[in-house]
Amino acid sequence: MTRSDKSELSKTAAGKVVVSVDAMGGDAGPGPVVAGMAIAAKYNPDLRFTVSGDEEELARLISRRVNLADRCEIRHAEGVVTMDEKPSHVMRHGKGTSMWSAIEAVRDGDASVCVSLGNTGALMALSMVRLRKLAGVNRPAIACLWPSRNPGGFNVMLDAGADIRADSEDLLQYALMGVSYARIGLGLNRPRVGLLNVGTEEHKGRAELKIAHDSIAEAARIAEFEFVGYVEGGDMPSDRVDVIVTDGFTGNVALKTGEGTATLIREFLRAAFAYSPLSRFAALLAYTSLRRLSKRIDPRRVNGGVFLGLNGSVVKSHGSADATGVAAALKLASELGRANLPERLAARLASLDAAGHSPLKIEQRYGTQA
Amino acid sequence: MTRSDKSELSKTAAGKVVVSVDAMGGDAGPGPVVAGMAIAAKYNPDLRFTVSGDEEELARLISRRVNLADRCEIRHAEGVVTMDEKPSHVMRHGKGTSMWSAIEAVRDGDASVCVSLGNTGALMALSMVRLRKLAGVNRPAIACLWPSRNPGGFNVMLDAGADIRADSEDLLQYALMGVSYARIGLGLNRPRVGLLNVGTEEHKGRAELKIAHDSIAEAARIAEFEFVGYVEGGDMPSDRVDVIVTDGFTGNVALKTGEGTATLIREFLRAAFAYSPLSRFAALLAYTSLRRLSKRIDPRRVNGGVFLGLNGSVVKSHGSADATGVAAALKLASELGRANLPERLAARLASLDAAGHSPLKIEQRYGTQA
Repeated sequence: MTRSDKSELSKTAAGKVVVSVDAMGGDAGPGPVVAGMAIAAKYNPDLRFTVSGDEEELARLISRRVNLADRCEIRHAEGVVTMDEKPSHVMRHGKGTSMWSAIEAVRDGDASVCVSLGNTGALMALSMVRLRKLAGVNRPAIACLWPSRNPGGFNVMLDAGADIRADSEDLLQYALMGVSYARIGLGLNRPRVGLLNVGTEEHKGRAELKIAHDSIAEAARIAEFEFVGYVEGGDMPSDRVDVIVTDGFTGNVALKTGEGTATLIREFLRAAFAYSPLSRFAALLAYTSLRRLSKRIDPRRVNGGVFLGLNGSVVKSHGSADATGVAAALKLASELGRANLPERLAARLASLDAAGHSPLKIEQRYGTQA
Repeated sequence: MTRSDKSELSKTAAGKVVVSVDAMGGDAGPGPVVAGMAIAAKYNPDLRFTVSGDEEELARLISRRVNLADRCEIRHAEGVVTMDEKPSHVMRHGKGTSMWSAIEAVRDGDASVCVSLGNTGALMALSMVRLRKLAGVNRPAIACLWPSRNPGGFNVMLDAGADIRADSEDLLQYALMGVSYARIGLGLNRPRVGLLNVGTEEHKGRAELKIAHDSIAEAARIAEFEFVGYVEGGDMPSDRVDVIVTDGFTGNVALKTGEGTATLIREFLRAAFAYSPLSRFAALLAYTSLRRLSKRIDPRRVNGGVFLGLNGSVVKSHGSADATGVAAALKLASELGRANLPERLAARLASLDAAGHSPLKIEQRYGTQA
């Protein structure tokens, strides 16, 4: 590109956002990652990247894309965190990996958000150690988008699996984090929060849920959100709630169950339309409708779990994500980076604290539980 | 009916099975229940019913069906357990309700299995009190069928919500109960059991899951089943497992999440085919294929959670089940009644006990946990 092109680019610097990409962690290596970057770059002219991984391979892949070379800064990293490495091992020996390097770019302020396709546990562990938890946050959480009947098409669910435990205080913090995320990610002014339980009747469920129910209701009165009370698994895609709060064990099982169900139905759908010559002809006629449906229920389109509660945003994409999936994660990352999610979340926690309704104080009032 | 009809009926007594039906507990009253009985009776010539509820209304509904009058014994019950009644209240004051009467028919040996559309918590509580737990069973569980890629089309998941807690010993018992159920309900000789967790790596998950993992693996060596280890939410419809074991909180959320996802996709599918004149024409051409698909993903077709671990079988049908749903639950009930599930399960528990591998003994070896 010429110098005049470059000066043209720098004019838009005000709106630009830099995403730090761990290019090596996915199941299929850096190929789909760079392809996804090219798609995202096409639709987001203000998007820039720092890309961590094998310099030689990345330079080769990026040079093939006309719209990428000028937007990427490659950061060489020798190592790759594998999918089966234990988080504790990666925390001790992860320096020099592409994942570490990608998080470091956010820590150093060179990028505002990090995207990785790698090992979720390791990514969370490294993010915790290098970015640190936001002041006042006990357990960070992973938030994911869930296809729903709401006008925007999605709900937020958290925790999708950052931690297998959550006490009532954690659940309250998840509610607050989810509200901040829904304001940015879903553009909602006054998100409606629900607490996941096995029944909507108040006498059901675990003890920590009852305490969390009361403290979230109390927080809702002073923060800008609504609390709809308990919701059930069937409400995941409901239009009566925007943010669904649960512990990371239940949330992870629910997320994977939902994805597994959608995948099964996609297979059934394909089989149904391949059944007879007539149904194959019908599929041809309904091509546009079927493609629209297929897109709506395609897990790749909702790719990207967001780590909340850290000094910096981190987006975890599926390890098996293809270019479409990576592009979706990068789009989400750029929105979060532009809105500066951690700063907003910190302000929300601080305002509750100033009003005497910090999670800690609510917790003290109700006593401690396991 | 005439005396000669009666003697004609008694000739088939050897293969007959009597199902006790709580006709009043569903959302829409006894109408869909009796309609479902008529469908089930049509396909199962050996099926008989004891029907509990308002005698006058039931007599009127049953007399309208040509194939029902000779097969039903009506048991009058004034009261109805409502959907929002607390189980503890129903246990104290439930006598005289149709639910109580329906369970009593099994307790008295007049029927071999009970079907109700009513309040799940109340049905479980009454079943526990009136039928009692099988010797050696700690917590009864609710097992449900899950659409899957297996040749038979279904997996079994338990506990779907009988109890919100389960320790490692309970999870082992669920595995054994699930195996007995899969042998009858799915006709499998050597069911494969998986333990639901948030990751398949052995270092993940809660402490009680690790202990349950080892004790189920040990039980598998002497009982006739395979243990495939940990499975994830995405494995619910998998063909690498037949029985999925989890606690009732997680299982209930997973079940309702799966149903909610399927319902959402059915709505999307309908909308996609109503979108344009061309897609409406295509839907017409693909009518048979779409109906087949719709059937496969219709939650009503998999209607019926089965209570396991009691001295008698109880099938819980959805409160909103229509005639099709009720018929599916009755079909399942007749299969369980014919096979005498509780007797088989008791034999399985006793044989493990005799081999020195009772859940209790395994538990003692590993120590007690919360």
